[in-house]
Amino acid sequence: MFSKEEKAAIYKVIETRRDIRTFNTDPVPMEAVARILEAAHHAPSVGFMQPWNFILIESDEVKNQLAWAADKERRALAIHYEEDERASKFLSLKIEGLKEAPLTICVTCDPTRGGSHVLGRNSIPETDMMSTACAIQNMWLASCGEGLAMGWVSFYKKSDVRDILAIPPHIDPVALLSIGYTEVYPKAPILETANWEKRHSLQKLIFNEKWGNK
Amino acid sequence: MFSKEEKAAIYKVIETRRDIRTFNTDPVPMEAVARILEAAHHAPSVGFMQPWNFILIESDEVKNQLAWAADKERRALAIHYEEDERASKFLSLKIEGLKEAPLTICVTCDPTRGGSHVLGRNSIPETDMMSTACAIQNMWLASCGEGLAMGWVSFYKKSDVRDILAIPPHIDPVALLSIGYTEVYPKAPILETANWEKRHSLQKLIFNEKWGNK
Repeated sequence: MFSKEEKAAIYKVIETRRDIRTFNTDPVPMEAVARILEAAHHAPSVGFMQPWNFILIESDEVKNQLAWAADKERRALAIHYEEDERASKFLSLKIEGLKEAPLTICVTCDPTRGGSHVLGRNSIPETDMMSTACAIQNMWLASCGEGLAMGWVSFYKKSDVRDILAIPPHIDPVALLSIGYTEVYPKAPILETANWEKRHSLQKLIFNEKWGNK
Repeated sequence: MFSKEEKAAIYKVIETRRDIRTFNTDPVPMEAVARILEAAHHAPSVGFMQPWNFILIESDEVKNQLAWAADKERRALAIHYEEDERASKFLSLKIEGLKEAPLTICVTCDPTRGGSHVLGRNSIPETDMMSTACAIQNMWLASCGEGLAMGWVSFYKKSDVRDILAIPPHIDPVALLSIGYTEVYPKAPILETANWEKRHSLQKLIFNEKWGNK
């Protein structure tokens, strides 16, 4: 059971967690990293398959290679956004974050873990990736609780990241996470503040009994 | 910032949250449901696309139709598990849960929300589904904090669930969640207790700088 104060803490972390792109150079305590990874490992997973791995990257050499891969992709994407250069600018902030943050964690998903017929995954195979996303969300909440900031970089060619990190071809590098301390922990998502996209009305996203039924 | 007590509450909910399959008939307070949905809506999403919708199902009629779809799939899957009838039994517990729980929430993912070039989703399109999984994890933690139990059913044909809930063809019904109170909130995952799969050693899942590097 959870006390009123504990409940409030749970909602507080869920509501204040933000996607951060600027970090200072203060090192991340390894005990905090251990707790964040423990939180990831306590995520739910379909058939208890625990499909995740975590590659911790602290060397500038590897971080710069990952930033190169993301920047290559940013420049390619910029062509699709040529009518709105803000997009390319938003993405470049993430690349700066990758270079600045003292720690990068590549989270991977192994679809073969647990064998050919993982319980509950046979019908919806992408539940392995969704399980990994639940682990990432746990890491985000744990980081926020630790007073640390986290940013998720999701633009790169997976084959580049596999090459850089020597990841086997059947393993999916689903996220690059930047973790560190920050001076700026905004109250609202920066894409909201920048008027890129607004928060939808929750009421409009809820239906009763059937789709479209208010 | 989070106090020591708040931090402890965050880790407590992450570690004690379980996938539950048995519910009693006590109704779920609508204020708790509102907070759980608010938690979902505060999940991170790629390009702030917020791809989720929530269909709340309380009528026995619709719940039974969903249980029928899941049971049909369970019987089909049972053929693949004919050498281990425990599998089919584990899955049937989920179907009982679907029928017992006073509330079922179908969580959907709309890949078209936010237009054709959602920021950060262009390279890894499945980040929409991963965002939705982050929302589901928030719901799970919020439910646990509320003293409520939640179970995720992931075996059904999506076309059956679309038919039953009148979901448009381009919308993905990614999860059926059973929510209610339970008498039994186990300390360990039931697949672990039943010796189906054990918790992996976290240390073995962590690498340094490159895949495979300890």
